[in-house]
Amino acid sequence: MKLVRYGQPGAERPGVLDAQGVLRDLSMLLPELGPAQLGPRTLSALAALDTSRLPAVPGAPRLACPVAGVGKIVCVGLNYADHALEAGMQAPAEPVLFMKAITALSGPNDAVRIPPGARKTDWEVELGIVIGTRASHVSEGVALQHVAGYVLANDVSERAWQTERGGQWDKGKSYDTFAPIGPWLVTADEVPDPHAIDLWLEVNGQRVQNGNTRNFIFGVPTVVSYISQFMTLEPGDIVLTGTPAGVGLGQKPAPWFLKPGDVMRLGATGLGEQTQTCVGG
Amino acid sequence: MKLVRYGQPGAERPGVLDAQGVLRDLSMLLPELGPAQLGPRTLSALAALDTSRLPAVPGAPRLACPVAGVGKIVCVGLNYADHALEAGMQAPAEPVLFMKAITALSGPNDAVRIPPGARKTDWEVELGIVIGTRASHVSEGVALQHVAGYVLANDVSERAWQTERGGQWDKGKSYDTFAPIGPWLVTADEVPDPHAIDLWLEVNGQRVQNGNTRNFIFGVPTVVSYISQFMTLEPGDIVLTGTPAGVGLGQKPAPWFLKPGDVMRLGATGLGEQTQTCVGG
Repeated sequence: MKLVRYGQPGAERPGVLDAQGVLRDLSMLLPELGPAQLGPRTLSALAALDTSRLPAVPGAPRLACPVAGVGKIVCVGLNYADHALEAGMQAPAEPVLFMKAITALSGPNDAVRIPPGARKTDWEVELGIVIGTRASHVSEGVALQHVAGYVLANDVSERAWQTERGGQWDKGKSYDTFAPIGPWLVTADEVPDPHAIDLWLEVNGQRVQNGNTRNFIFGVPTVVSYISQFMTLEPGDIVLTGTPAGVGLGQKPAPWFLKPGDVMRLGATGLGEQTQTCVGG
Repeated sequence: MKLVRYGQPGAERPGVLDAQGVLRDLSMLLPELGPAQLGPRTLSALAALDTSRLPAVPGAPRLACPVAGVGKIVCVGLNYADHALEAGMQAPAEPVLFMKAITALSGPNDAVRIPPGARKTDWEVELGIVIGTRASHVSEGVALQHVAGYVLANDVSERAWQTERGGQWDKGKSYDTFAPIGPWLVTADEVPDPHAIDLWLEVNGQRVQNGNTRNFIFGVPTVVSYISQFMTLEPGDIVLTGTPAGVGLGQKPAPWFLKPGDVMRLGATGLGEQTQTCVGG
């Protein structure tokens, strides 16, 4: 299934795309699409629906982050060798972890705000994992059982804040609108292999990132298992799995970064597309 | 006011200490003590109560983190010069920020779990700030208006995970039970000067930390204003302000760390005390 949340900020409703791609309302069945709805029982029940009989949503409403009530966003850094190289970092021996503030979450096509004083605001197309059931000290062998599904994400990053302002990356990863997620939460049954997903990102129509999750240094089971040794993952938590090469920091002959008016367009196989316009603010 | 949440995990109720220190139930007035209750309107209304007429809570129930629905825990690192020195780090030119996962939250007297494989689990007594109203790009001059109150906190840290496992401190700061908070949320009106608070911590009866918030490198208005430039602080968010010298990492002649059976006791002027027994797990 492709699950969505649609509507204006603060008034979102859950919905689902039917087989023809028509957005159907789910609000008469589910109060939200959040931690209480992401477990296998609810997802199995939803899968039994004849979605074509649900009310079609008129028009083209705003899409929100398809997960409500996100508890935390845990991110893996430098998870593609080519991106580690362009960032001037060694490929890590074990996953590098950092966090983004949940206040950074936004819809897939919402504007991205370039913060006052920012000089190096950058893009990062990523595969996101949405946790469906609590995971603490889980093995790689069972890790995928804790995954509700996958999302497309842009891990927007202000590089000067991330690395030139006194240490710890979180500072440059957490500005409001720095975590566009969606358009859809694609349930795991529709993603037969999370390690065969093309990822791409364009800025103002110019293709800058082209990657595939087959080039992960640490795959999805490893990442989920690993994080669960350091903290408990709860339903609704989002794990961002790192970005391939081609971020602004790595552009040749010189890095270049986002400014108001720039448009990012990004996509991933089976997970849809996002378009964000950069604005001052 | 000294506000608390009491009861077993998952079934906590809000309460308040009366002038005699008797715990009184607030659950008939408030559904919870969370983001929706931390603004000035609710706190002013609570301050008008004759708490001695509220039902006394019998016995000595477990106390929980006094804030429900915490959205994020933002931490300031190295905010006391003496601690930066013992950690072998330079005093920072601007606040170092990192985050703890909200799944680390626990009650002030709950057991602290020493993780499997941990070798350097350490203590950090801290002053915590609880945000009462949304703060984005606020100046130092108005920052205190966004503070609902203060809490005692132990920023429990696994040092090997924090600094020896591939970068970014969050990895060593976020294990379940690594954020005991409480016993009370002391509203800001009862903390006339947050820069005159003694902080202390004992391990197995031995005093190891003795500090005072007058020695902050960055005071409360600076910290709140600073963070609000990098992310929006929401009601219920908790800011931990750093620890003074005397952590296990800094012990002479050699560092020493926590093991199952160890007991931490810590306190802060006007903010109460915590006692945690360390357990395996």
